[in-house]
Amino acid sequence: MKHLININSLDIDEINQIYNRALEFEKGIRKANHINSHVVNMFFENSTRTKMSFEMAENKIHTNKYDFTADTSSIQKGEDLYDTINNLSAIGMNVVIMRHSDNKLIEKLCAKSYFQEISFINAGSGTDAHPTQALLDFYTIKKHFLNLYGKTLVIVGDVGHSRVAHSNINLLKKFGMKIRCAAPENLIGEKIEGVEYFTSLREAFEQADIVMALRIQRERIQEKIDFEEYIKNYQITKDNLPYAAFLMHPGPVNRDIEISSDVLELQNARTILNQAKNGVYVRMAVLDMILTAQGL
Amino acid sequence: MKHLININSLDIDEINQIYNRALEFEKGIRKANHINSHVVNMFFENSTRTKMSFEMAENKIHTNKYDFTADTSSIQKGEDLYDTINNLSAIGMNVVIMRHSDNKLIEKLCAKSYFQEISFINAGSGTDAHPTQALLDFYTIKKHFLNLYGKTLVIVGDVGHSRVAHSNINLLKKFGMKIRCAAPENLIGEKIEGVEYFTSLREAFEQADIVMALRIQRERIQEKIDFEEYIKNYQITKDNLPYAAFLMHPGPVNRDIEISSDVLELQNARTILNQAKNGVYVRMAVLDMILTAQGL
Amino acid sequence: MKHLININSLDIDEINQIYNRALEFEKGIRKANHINSHVVNMFFENSTRTKMSFEMAENKIHTNKYDFTADTSSIQKGEDLYDTINNLSAIGMNVVIMRHSDNKLIEKLCAKSYFQEISFINAGSGTDAHPTQALLDFYTIKKHFLNLYGKTLVIVGDVGHSRVAHSNINLLKKFGMKIRCAAPENLIGEKIEGVEYFTSLREAFEQADIVMALRIQRERIQEKIDFEEYIKNYQITKDNLPYAAFLMHPGPVNRDIEISSDVLELQNARTILNQAKNGVYVRMAVLDMILTAQGL
Repeated sequence: MKHLININSLDIDEINQIYNRALEFEKGIRKANHINSHVVNMFFENSTRTKMSFEMAENKIHTNKYDFTADTSSIQKGEDLYDTINNLSAIGMNVVIMRHSDNKLIEKLCAKSYFQEISFINAGSGTDAHPTQALLDFYTIKKHFLNLYGKTLVIVGDVGHSRVAHSNINLLKKFGMKIRCAAPENLIGEKIEGVEYFTSLREAFEQADIVMALRIQRERIQEKIDFEEYIKNYQITKDNLPYAAFLMHPGPVNRDIEISSDVLELQNARTILNQAKNGVYVRMAVLDMILTAQGL
Repeated sequence: MKHLININSLDIDEINQIYNRALEFEKGIRKANHINSHVVNMFFENSTRTKMSFEMAENKIHTNKYDFTADTSSIQKGEDLYDTINNLSAIGMNVVIMRHSDNKLIEKLCAKSYFQEISFINAGSGTDAHPTQALLDFYTIKKHFLNLYGKTLVIVGDVGHSRVAHSNINLLKKFGMKIRCAAPENLIGEKIEGVEYFTSLREAFEQADIVMALRIQRERIQEKIDFEEYIKNYQITKDNLPYAAFLMHPGPVNRDIEISSDVLELQNARTILNQAKNGVYVRMAVLDMILTAQGL
Repeated sequence: MKHLININSLDIDEINQIYNRALEFEKGIRKANHINSHVVNMFFENSTRTKMSFEMAENKIHTNKYDFTADTSSIQKGEDLYDTINNLSAIGMNVVIMRHSDNKLIEKLCAKSYFQEISFINAGSGTDAHPTQALLDFYTIKKHFLNLYGKTLVIVGDVGHSRVAHSNINLLKKFGMKIRCAAPENLIGEKIEGVEYFTSLREAFEQADIVMALRIQRERIQEKIDFEEYIKNYQITKDNLPYAAFLMHPGPVNRDIEISSDVLELQNARTILNQAKNGVYVRMAVLDMILTAQGL
């Protein structure tokens, strides 16, 4: 693997390979030591969880990690960033892990970068893609269900602005899962082929092996959100959550908006923390595969 | 040791154990290697010295260190922080080192955290407690005097707002020291049993083996401070500092306010830099004991 | 070597020693392991490239690195910084790498620091000096030309505000190079003995083995800059760049101001990225020499 920009570029074999390698890391039967490699974290959008998760993965595979803390205002234009990355490549960086509000910037940089030596990992690009999140969700689901074929996932909430939803739909459809989205009209976004859309949570939940609540992306929503209305119709509560459903959320949860606090304290909400835990192993696997492909 | 939240939770044996371990680290006869452990520094109040000291301790015992740089405004509420820490625990953090302006937040988080695996070290909580500072002051005093029983410590200045004073009083009383505080009425704060209070520096200094000046906590004082009046009555100078007294200050010193510059250049003001030096060994000891208790 | 404050303090032998050591690091025939040393990066002016380059050098020689992120406003005065550095030295820092807008602050700190144990590296001081940049430029030139004697360097642009130009002139004159500066009157600054000054780029370029464009230091220029006029007369383009000239720039380039984009895409503009690459080896050499001199 040279880059990880979005799920489309991965075939089923590669996804399974990432899954297996992550599992080996989790079980402690695989170790990696990339002491001669250098990885830079470039987060242009706020992040605590994803960034810390990548940092932990970096430490666990013993790469050297760098924090690129740009004054966001001074480095918004793609052109400047292109020069910066050429420079980082020149001094010896091997991997750039980037989060940016622009949907397609990473792809453009990756295509242009004329050193051809540095690899990119997309840690979240606008509303478009968040491939390592989808891979860790896949890992979490597959560990629990083993076989995904025919299982139904209901994604609830701000689907339109969610790179998590978009990457998950891309990935899980490859494995034969049925995808439903339940959201108010104004948060549905552009409809995706092969996905069923509901405005009624109750109807969507009539079939649900997995429920994935999404964070409402306030920072990407222009119009005023009617939270009272949202909570009434889409909050996941003890009452509406299907009995056997596997509950997921990419975090951070807006407590008592997307999910009620009492559900969060339930045993089965631990899945959300398991997603976080699994993220480290999946990111170790991705980084390990990319660095190994570079001979490092 | 599971957590280090305040001095009250430590008995004399544990304090002596920390002292001995720190001494072994200083002498180089003890080494620690916690390469499989992960420690996150969460400083919600500005800090250079304490944070750098913890970072050096972390490097010296070979743990993996992380910097949690939160936008303070977005993460002030305890509830959010609780979710954040559960997440950090889930991804594999073993220790949280936290400084926060809230006197009791760390205690609350520590009690609530439902993973039960992560340890907390209080690196300064409001005006309440700063246990590693008290431990390093104890270390500094004990190395010099060997026996603390019956020795008199005079704490000078902003006692009321000082977590350093509060933790030191808690700790040093356990070892039979006599504690005096010299401060203007408005900086004395709530009086503590067994401590003598003076508004006259001269009177307090009539008996003084150790003089500990405190930083005036401008950020915690609402009313206007009359610095001229403070300097006249409480600044430590060549003239009023008792001849044989051992001078301490937790740093950073407001030069020519709490202590005159000429005193700072004296040989015996080097104690202040020794406190800084000793802090690294004491923090190594605390971290080493906590990580060892976790089997790491 | 105890400190690296400016080029004046280095003789020809020391410069050649740095060159040789950097070359050995680049070729991989020298390794360094300073695992028991501690280096703190204190950048009071924005920097991505120089800071990342130092960080990579620090990782490659296996020192422990620290990031001093001061609230610039609270720590502008030399006096405060003096206490801070004494404290950093006390806790065990071995080297301070400092960038500051004040031309002479580092020299003053270095002279005053009474611990006498900590070393300073100047990573850029105001408009005055940037010795590691000059050393990496020397390294880049010498690797290409082998013998510098009699070669002509034309420095183009904001010479007056450029610490890069000042340090390069100091260094390259020692090796018998001819130095020309081409700049508009208002950017020439104080003239230096032995340097030829031109306001016509064409005339300056009549003799030019090496062309070094400088970044326009907008942050240090009070009056309004007429960029149109600058571009017309001083931009380096395919048309005016002498055929065989070796093109350099300390970066970051203001594209289409100092150098036209089409020149930047030329093969010979790769030198600029080579400068960046070489910077890591030169900084490894400097750090290695300083730490070795400390017995670390």
